Amino acid sequence: MALSEVDRLIQLLARLPGLGPRSARRAVLHLIKRREALLDPLARAMADVAVSIRTCSTCGNIDTVDPCAICRDEKRDRSVICVVEDVADLWAIERTSSYPGQYHVLGGTLSALDGVGPEDLRIDRLVGRTSAAEVSEVILATNATVEGQTTAHYISDRLAGTGVTVSRLAHGVPVGGELDYLDDGTLTAALKSRRRLGATE
Amino acid sequence: MALSEVDRLIQLLARLPGLGPRSARRAVLHLIKRREALLDPLARAMADVAVSIRTCSTCGNIDTVDPCAICRDEKRDRSVICVVEDVADLWAIERTSSYPGQYHVLGGTLSALDGVGPEDLRIDRLVGRTSAAEVSEVILATNATVEGQTTAHYISDRLAGTGVTVSRLAHGVPVGGELDYLDDGTLTAALKSRRRLGATE
Repeated sequence: MALSEVDRLIQLLARLPGLGPRSARRAVLHLIKRREALLDPLARAMADVAVSIRTCSTCGNIDTVDPCAICRDEKRDRSVICVVEDVADLWAIERTSSYPGQYHVLGGTLSALDGVGPEDLRIDRLVGRTSAAEVSEVILATNATVEGQTTAHYISDRLAGTGVTVSRLAHGVPVGGELDYLDDGTLTAALKSRRRLGATE
Repeated sequence: MALSEVDRLIQLLARLPGLGPRSARRAVLHLIKRREALLDPLARAMADVAVSIRTCSTCGNIDTVDPCAICRDEKRDRSVICVVEDVADLWAIERTSSYPGQYHVLGGTLSALDGVGPEDLRIDRLVGRTSAAEVSEVILATNATVEGQTTAHYISDRLAGTGVTVSRLAHGVPVGGELDYLDDGTLTAALKSRRRLGATE
């Protein structure tokens, strides 16, 4: 068929999360109308990323250099490692500009159902990193899901006895959140972890 | 910044309709994880489309050849031209496999607000095409919006006196539609255009 290039592009775009066949068609027409402004740059940006992107052999982050910019950055605190499931979580924490330490990207969570065991995640590498003298704390920032919690539990067991402090992100009321709309689990956790007013931050 | 290639890709993807910064980030991570299966083919498909796509000088459709495959197809009825606003509308009609004729893509609608006049659309070209002896009917399949209707009106005026039959898509109850959920305008149109049962299709 003559339109095969366009059809192929629609099919590929439809496989992106958040896009279906209908929105992929709209996106492709949008691209074709803006060939110079959008289609050409996008094709080039994708090719650039495909060629240049690599996984950091230290932390599992993605970057154009290995080790990644965060692992290379001399100004970042090398005594703390924040363990996240995915690069998206690393990006989310980086966007807060409130964490000065290192990261470790697991590449998923333990899942008996999906057959994901410890050997499928970057856990051995994490244990290896924590044995360095400079590391004093590991923050487990896996998601607050069953799999995330299970994975955090497993890692905390693995790190027991190494002398490294293992911590978890705090549970509680989201900033700006209304109690009435909060689930019971979060509210219970927020109550349990309540802090005395006037206590040191 | 070291991640600039990835950031640039996110920014470009976020400009697609239906994607925002958040879904663009997710899409890029999805792409990077599936480099061979998705990112490489997508980069190539975009480059292919950017190089090969052109607008049909006859009907305004997009294709890799000019005239487009529909205009070239000897098996299609050359006596009917279906006028649509956009290539997406042409695709929508083609998907029904129920229209055997030619198309004419206007490239938009008349709009005083946006400063779109008849000279900005492919209307002169349409009038030129209808002067061919073989053309007997023009179907105005512009959208049922104010702009679409205005444009249809204008074209029908332009074609008055040429001897070509000018028709509009029927208004009515969508197939599978429930009256209770239908807007008044559609229901009124469906009532006005009611057909006697047992009449010839």
